[in-house]
Amino acid sequence: MSVSAAVAGASGYAGGELLRLLLQHPRIEIGALTGGSNAGRELGGLQPHLGPLAGRVLEPTEPEVLAGHDVVFLALPHGRSAEVAAGLGDEVLVIDCGADFRLSDSAAWERWYGSPHAGTWPYGLPELPGAREALAGAGRIAVPGCYPTAVTLGLFPAYAAGLAEPEAVIVAASGTSGAGKALKPHLLGSEVMGSMSPYGVGGAHRHTPEMVQNLSAVAGEPVTVSFTPTLAPMPRGILATCTAAARPGTTAGAVREAYAKAVAGEPFLRLLPEGQWPATASVLGSNSALVQVTLDEEAGRIVAVTAVDNLTKGTAGGAVQSMNIALGFPEDLGLPATGLAP
Amino acid sequence: MSVSAAVAGASGYAGGELLRLLLQHPRIEIGALTGGSNAGRELGGLQPHLGPLAGRVLEPTEPEVLAGHDVVFLALPHGRSAEVAAGLGDEVLVIDCGADFRLSDSAAWERWYGSPHAGTWPYGLPELPGAREALAGAGRIAVPGCYPTAVTLGLFPAYAAGLAEPEAVIVAASGTSGAGKALKPHLLGSEVMGSMSPYGVGGAHRHTPEMVQNLSAVAGEPVTVSFTPTLAPMPRGILATCTAAARPGTTAGAVREAYAKAVAGEPFLRLLPEGQWPATASVLGSNSALVQVTLDEEAGRIVAVTAVDNLTKGTAGGAVQSMNIALGFPEDLGLPATGLAP
Amino acid sequence: MSVSAAVAGASGYAGGELLRLLLQHPRIEIGALTGGSNAGRELGGLQPHLGPLAGRVLEPTEPEVLAGHDVVFLALPHGRSAEVAAGLGDEVLVIDCGADFRLSDSAAWERWYGSPHAGTWPYGLPELPGAREALAGAGRIAVPGCYPTAVTLGLFPAYAAGLAEPEAVIVAASGTSGAGKALKPHLLGSEVMGSMSPYGVGGAHRHTPEMVQNLSAVAGEPVTVSFTPTLAPMPRGILATCTAAARPGTTAGAVREAYAKAVAGEPFLRLLPEGQWPATASVLGSNSALVQVTLDEEAGRIVAVTAVDNLTKGTAGGAVQSMNIALGFPEDLGLPATGLAP
Amino acid sequence: MSVSAAVAGASGYAGGELLRLLLQHPRIEIGALTGGSNAGRELGGLQPHLGPLAGRVLEPTEPEVLAGHDVVFLALPHGRSAEVAAGLGDEVLVIDCGADFRLSDSAAWERWYGSPHAGTWPYGLPELPGAREALAGAGRIAVPGCYPTAVTLGLFPAYAAGLAEPEAVIVAASGTSGAGKALKPHLLGSEVMGSMSPYGVGGAHRHTPEMVQNLSAVAGEPVTVSFTPTLAPMPRGILATCTAAARPGTTAGAVREAYAKAVAGEPFLRLLPEGQWPATASVLGSNSALVQVTLDEEAGRIVAVTAVDNLTKGTAGGAVQSMNIALGFPEDLGLPATGLAP
Repeated sequence: MSVSAAVAGASGYAGGELLRLLLQHPRIEIGALTGGSNAGRELGGLQPHLGPLAGRVLEPTEPEVLAGHDVVFLALPHGRSAEVAAGLGDEVLVIDCGADFRLSDSAAWERWYGSPHAGTWPYGLPELPGAREALAGAGRIAVPGCYPTAVTLGLFPAYAAGLAEPEAVIVAASGTSGAGKALKPHLLGSEVMGSMSPYGVGGAHRHTPEMVQNLSAVAGEPVTVSFTPTLAPMPRGILATCTAAARPGTTAGAVREAYAKAVAGEPFLRLLPEGQWPATASVLGSNSALVQVTLDEEAGRIVAVTAVDNLTKGTAGGAVQSMNIALGFPEDLGLPATGLAP
Repeated sequence: MSVSAAVAGASGYAGGELLRLLLQHPRIEIGALTGGSNAGRELGGLQPHLGPLAGRVLEPTEPEVLAGHDVVFLALPHGRSAEVAAGLGDEVLVIDCGADFRLSDSAAWERWYGSPHAGTWPYGLPELPGAREALAGAGRIAVPGCYPTAVTLGLFPAYAAGLAEPEAVIVAASGTSGAGKALKPHLLGSEVMGSMSPYGVGGAHRHTPEMVQNLSAVAGEPVTVSFTPTLAPMPRGILATCTAAARPGTTAGAVREAYAKAVAGEPFLRLLPEGQWPATASVLGSNSALVQVTLDEEAGRIVAVTAVDNLTKGTAGGAVQSMNIALGFPEDLGLPATGLAP
Repeated sequence: MSVSAAVAGASGYAGGELLRLLLQHPRIEIGALTGGSNAGRELGGLQPHLGPLAGRVLEPTEPEVLAGHDVVFLALPHGRSAEVAAGLGDEVLVIDCGADFRLSDSAAWERWYGSPHAGTWPYGLPELPGAREALAGAGRIAVPGCYPTAVTLGLFPAYAAGLAEPEAVIVAASGTSGAGKALKPHLLGSEVMGSMSPYGVGGAHRHTPEMVQNLSAVAGEPVTVSFTPTLAPMPRGILATCTAAARPGTTAGAVREAYAKAVAGEPFLRLLPEGQWPATASVLGSNSALVQVTLDEEAGRIVAVTAVDNLTKGTAGGAVQSMNIALGFPEDLGLPATGLAP
Repeated sequence: MSVSAAVAGASGYAGGELLRLLLQHPRIEIGALTGGSNAGRELGGLQPHLGPLAGRVLEPTEPEVLAGHDVVFLALPHGRSAEVAAGLGDEVLVIDCGADFRLSDSAAWERWYGSPHAGTWPYGLPELPGAREALAGAGRIAVPGCYPTAVTLGLFPAYAAGLAEPEAVIVAASGTSGAGKALKPHLLGSEVMGSMSPYGVGGAHRHTPEMVQNLSAVAGEPVTVSFTPTLAPMPRGILATCTAAARPGTTAGAVREAYAKAVAGEPFLRLLPEGQWPATASVLGSNSALVQVTLDEEAGRIVAVTAVDNLTKGTAGGAVQSMNIALGFPEDLGLPATGLAP
């Protein structure tokens, strides 16, 4: 038996990836697709890679269009999600790919987003301790940000095992799709190809408080995060280099054991064999997160590197994985575990 | 009921793509994987994007390893396919992704490849008139070359409809995976990124006689082909610009009608709406071929452009599509019709 | 003794490249820099690669700002050049990088641009027969389009030698900077990286009549041009594959001789040794054009391939080269003949 | 009056970049070019971007070929430099782009390179305190590694001003040319395009001890360095994100002042205006290093980001800059301060 799913924001990159995945999902029937300024246009001109849906026409992003579906995915600018969600009843599973419901600390939300906090929903990162329990049967899900997904998966095993000091230093490279389809000069192909550049440096990126929230929860104490995102000349993928000072007495063996334990049984979190480091190409279009870790004895730091596809595991795949849990489907149903390489 | 499939040459790009597709195929059980110099190594270190097969060990490419499977895919250097195939019995469906059995003209083979011709197998381009009939129940299949796939799909409708003069001029851009994993200086990332370059210019590329063969068969007369391949700074994808002088009296409407007719009912050949031109990103990892065509009235030429993924529709996807026909499966079973974009 | 040069449109790609070259030119003193909507901004925020000019403030693009310089370069949208030039006196050498004064046929201009024809200026492609004579001492210069530069250099030797039929078929790949800094969705990095796509197919690109004009002039008879431009995933560079049917009796030797003669003594046009084909990386940032040619005996076509940097030889470098001629400087003064590779 | 310069290792990327710069240098006459396995070949087939030297033939890398020049640049594998240098007399200025003479600590050398230490030469990073004095009139110069150049320029101002704790955490992204022309599978274009990957993680990269040496010297105490290099899908450029915990009481103003002081009067080190962050595209082919810094108050860290071209400022440009100092030329003679963008 199928469930029906609507996608709000179907003309953007997150919306397109949701549709790519939902088309492959054996239990989903794709319902209404909505757009903002693109309402009224055919999807084929906006998402030419989604051939089977080429003739579908975008409807306006209104609750009445979205209501009546079993699941509604929101791939909207932050702020807009809360508005739309308010118009949807409890019988609809609402999965927000935006930021509105990720933070539990209202003060943090208001400081970072400058608007009233709409609330906190169960957090769609199943690999986190306790997350699956909160997602099972949930009616509302907040999908994590792409960077927080990569970074949390990279460091939570160290914090869960009590091996790391509460001061993380993280540098991540993201493909340009992470910035969306907005027409900004620095996102032009001429600017990004052949070039790397940082942005949101010095604690200015809005994903930082989400990382702080996740790592602090696992560590059981406040963790500070120095986070530097960089824009890489590739359409997709995040490579997150996540480091933290090792607690005194930490051994390489203990680090490895902690990570091995964290990935045990996980369908989409894979610890690579020792010596093999992840490349983002290995997870293109895949819901898998690859992780590798080592202990730099000289510098006294744990260094973990994760590779995820920002649009798949980092957004749409994480959303579908969480939906599977909420609806009681097998967690990996319809989700690709292989990447598109080369 | 599943059929078992072995892949010879599993460490290369074509072999990797075959495995990516076969993992998604609901009727296939993946059997032996073989390699040349990589025999004995684990697949995880060679194809890190194929997580579910990471622990599989490559065996040597020998008939005795491959025999006993229902289907054997050969992704081997030309010349080697014929050797291996000779050791496999009629009970095995052998699908060769190499060049050995593509040409029907022994003289052409020997001139282009400098070795004795091994024979001609049913040709795995189902969209060609008559191809499906030859593939149904076949025990041996020759998968077309990636360029001939893109070019033939671009021009056969014009020749089938008698609209084009028998002198085609074609320029195609290919991603670097078309050149395989061979370690050649001009294939280094430092050389190819940010650069376009031609090769095999002036009729020197071995895919030329295959295009001549296909287009001549459809046209019912000898077609000459001026073919210039170029190497583009991307891992995958072929964009083929295919032109031919229009026969006198040809109208834009007749051209469009010919192409519309050619794609009618085709699961993987899609004619875009007028005015929309194909981009290779739209077919990444997809078995679809996108085509658009126009009539340049001033220059008197039909100009068709096709986009395919050289590894999917151009190699491994075409192989699986042909296998589906040979085995009586639905032709599109397990094959992605959507691309990975952006 | 230096001459002063102003650049109108200094915030665009052509303007930036002009400044990069003029900074290296030993006889030029850079004067006013102007911008449209960017007037009033510092150049450092718009062209961060031009460190030595970072503090310069853009002035409005008005004749009174530009007057008083020895040379004025116009890097403006078409239509705007003619307006601005009309306000500059004969004592100023005006060099237009736009299209306004390239075409000699008023009817063609009006058909392609939909506005009244402003006139025809000496054409800044010194390699064309007769061009240097017209440029020497000129007070107005029309810089060729980037595609017409690449294509004309690729085929004029064949037409000058009477070896080619008057029906050229050309496919060219361009880096994205050829499309300028305009904020269009298809120019986003996420869209262009890893993808090739055509545009302006079927005779729809405005550079086509310029190619027709150039090749017809050299051939002494009307030449038709089938031109297909494609967008390649690189910031700079044009690779033009230029073909024409060989006149009966044409030999490979005659073709080579024609090209060797055409490049003899040329400072920036280089015929590669036989068997070596040009890559755009070899001319990045260089004013050189690399060309190679062969005769495809089977298809009966001459196939020439040229590589230029669309912003250097294709725009700003060609402009400076022409300026050098007009002012009586050595033609190669201040112009790089080497590319930036890898 | 010109000085003659030979380049040993002219077929590699560092050698090619040296030649590109030396061709533009007004006081240099290019003498012998040597190669290892490429000896006897013409440069045009190996470095097609260096048109003016296309006909030069590579000689074997032997002291007798190199002797007799005023300057000899060594762009050789480590270990080989020391051998060749031993055969050159004191009358020759020898500039080694390799690692042999960079480290002052013999034990560190032997630990990292596994061979006897050949000695320590004046260090070619003029921006470091005291470096210019050691370079003036020097007869031997060790050019820094590309990563140590970027990292040292990013953090030495903080350590010189006593603002940072002696525990640096650094993540850098490099273009693929940093890995040279070696034919390794992971350097194929198909592998690197569209992908980011780390290597030498956990303190395993040989450039680490050089960073430790530089930063410790400036800090006046041992500095530990956690360094993670990553391979980015671009041919050139390094973006180094360099962080260190701020000493208690450090203010944003003090940080900015320290960096402003460090760049004052430097011809090639530029601190960007506040809020503008460096992109590697801005320094392509340029000898400039761009730097920006901020204080992350929440995380308590100084975060500096530098962009350099690994082949120019990071290797060949740094070598020429140091040569200029050694020979008493103006330090910026013949060196480009502008980058090639877009």
